[in-house]
Amino acid sequence: MSSAVSAAGDSACFVSHVRVAFGDCDPAAIVYFPNFYRWLDEATHDLCEAAGYELTEVRRDRKWVGFPLAEAGARFHRPATINDRLRIETRVREWRPKMFLLDHRILRDDLLLVEGWQTRFIGVHLAEQGNRLAALPIPQAFIDAISRVMG
Amino acid sequence: MSSAVSAAGDSACFVSHVRVAFGDCDPAAIVYFPNFYRWLDEATHDLCEAAGYELTEVRRDRKWVGFPLAEAGARFHRPATINDRLRIETRVREWRPKMFLLDHRILRDDLLLVEGWQTRFIGVHLAEQGNRLAALPIPQAFIDAISRVMG
Amino acid sequence: MSSAVSAAGDSACFVSHVRVAFGDCDPAAIVYFPNFYRWLDEATHDLCEAAGYELTEVRRDRKWVGFPLAEAGARFHRPATINDRLRIETRVREWRPKMFLLDHRILRDDLLLVEGWQTRFIGVHLAEQGNRLAALPIPQAFIDAISRVMG
Amino acid sequence: MSSAVSAAGDSACFVSHVRVAFGDCDPAAIVYFPNFYRWLDEATHDLCEAAGYELTEVRRDRKWVGFPLAEAGARFHRPATINDRLRIETRVREWRPKMFLLDHRILRDDLLLVEGWQTRFIGVHLAEQGNRLAALPIPQAFIDAISRVMG
Repeated sequence: MSSAVSAAGDSACFVSHVRVAFGDCDPAAIVYFPNFYRWLDEATHDLCEAAGYELTEVRRDRKWVGFPLAEAGARFHRPATINDRLRIETRVREWRPKMFLLDHRILRDDLLLVEGWQTRFIGVHLAEQGNRLAALPIPQAFIDAISRVMG
Repeated sequence: MSSAVSAAGDSACFVSHVRVAFGDCDPAAIVYFPNFYRWLDEATHDLCEAAGYELTEVRRDRKWVGFPLAEAGARFHRPATINDRLRIETRVREWRPKMFLLDHRILRDDLLLVEGWQTRFIGVHLAEQGNRLAALPIPQAFIDAISRVMG
Repeated sequence: MSSAVSAAGDSACFVSHVRVAFGDCDPAAIVYFPNFYRWLDEATHDLCEAAGYELTEVRRDRKWVGFPLAEAGARFHRPATINDRLRIETRVREWRPKMFLLDHRILRDDLLLVEGWQTRFIGVHLAEQGNRLAALPIPQAFIDAISRVMG
Repeated sequence: MSSAVSAAGDSACFVSHVRVAFGDCDPAAIVYFPNFYRWLDEATHDLCEAAGYELTEVRRDRKWVGFPLAEAGARFHRPATINDRLRIETRVREWRPKMFLLDHRILRDDLLLVEGWQTRFIGVHLAEQGNRLAALPIPQAFIDAISRVMG
């Protein structure tokens, strides 16, 4: 994956790229769909890293476990196949007190293949609750940093 | 995966099982979420096989490419971890002329971990359209067979 | 995966089973080979669990990180395909002070598909060395327990 | 993955790169080892593509199924973790009539993490033998093209 920021179209977004490998495809010679979720996960991590919240650093320095998902979905319009170069556009649709909602679009050239949406939180372990995974109130600095990257 | 039919609760469903492997989990020691989609895919294939539509047979004998997804989503309520025994319940929510809508629930003991929903079609290749993937009108025999399995 | 112990043939082994899923296969409609390594990993974990060394317990109670690999290889004699029921035989070939060597055979019916071999150790973190992953001298109790399971 | 040719060191090799994703790592926060095989597979495909044997083209135009493995192995010297940038060096060690042997090295900066070796063939389907996967005698043009890419 490589990544960059784009303001093409009517709304700023974060852009990353992925190339489909032979092993990402199924016997129908199209991308086995769970891989799309893997790539959207990587796109979100790339966005956070571009905003200064690289995953190994936030895990080590802030004791965040990462950015777990509360909900995820995707609409599959057209299949992708071996060696396709895909463009992934990521936008933040909404900030909630403890959640952020992302919209993703996966394109080959200008053709929209997949639309995805994800609701994520900043995961922390609550020692006092048996190490249960909980959602941190989203820091304003995180919102500001992500928003700056989006342009 | 092993599977069976259950009529527990207020609505009949198809039940399959999966055990979480070490390699299915991420650095937070919980299931890396794309794997849930993989298991829901296997659960659907198990249901179709139980109904007499085993994947290698329908690919060879009927020239179906399988049961591709038009849409898929999931709500992640609680994480699963290494060696968890998970129960997957699958129900058909709706039959449309060329689509069928599935609801999935993933549980550990009686605890609901994940709710998933999927819109699928019977994929065929249209030779006259450059081998494009298209949706077959769903045969009544398929609906009847799946419904019989559900009880 | 399901598992059991077998003394069939000239040497006792640990037997586990796996069914090939659609998503485990590549565009050639055969198992994408990294998945075989995943299944051999699960077979080893199943063996250790049968011997009383379940992974989540040894991680929590003994502070072992698991059974990492020093070396692994496989010879692919014949491909496996969608819905194949595979039998995995696992044998311990050699115990070394800090390593154990495993031999695996993957069969469909009586046909040998894959031969694998793995050199593993018991992984621990050395706090005094920046949390580096190191090999624990293999406890005799571990050798005894595994050997008992093998029959 | 991105790729290039390098003649650094005493022997020419093909170089590709991969970045470790969060989801490539296991609960020990190191790369789950089957992923290394996936990346070596992609490295080989990149090499073949650089030599003019792109996978979708050889599948469509030459009716090759790809470059299946007869044998593969790896020695794991040091673990890789989230967001590591890895360099993969690929060399052809030997050409046989129907097989080619590859050596791989995976490095982070100048540190050798993994050594891998693979024996591959050009896979074709023998229609007269029930579509069985067979090894094509390796064309001299293929050897020449790969050798040219290696420098």
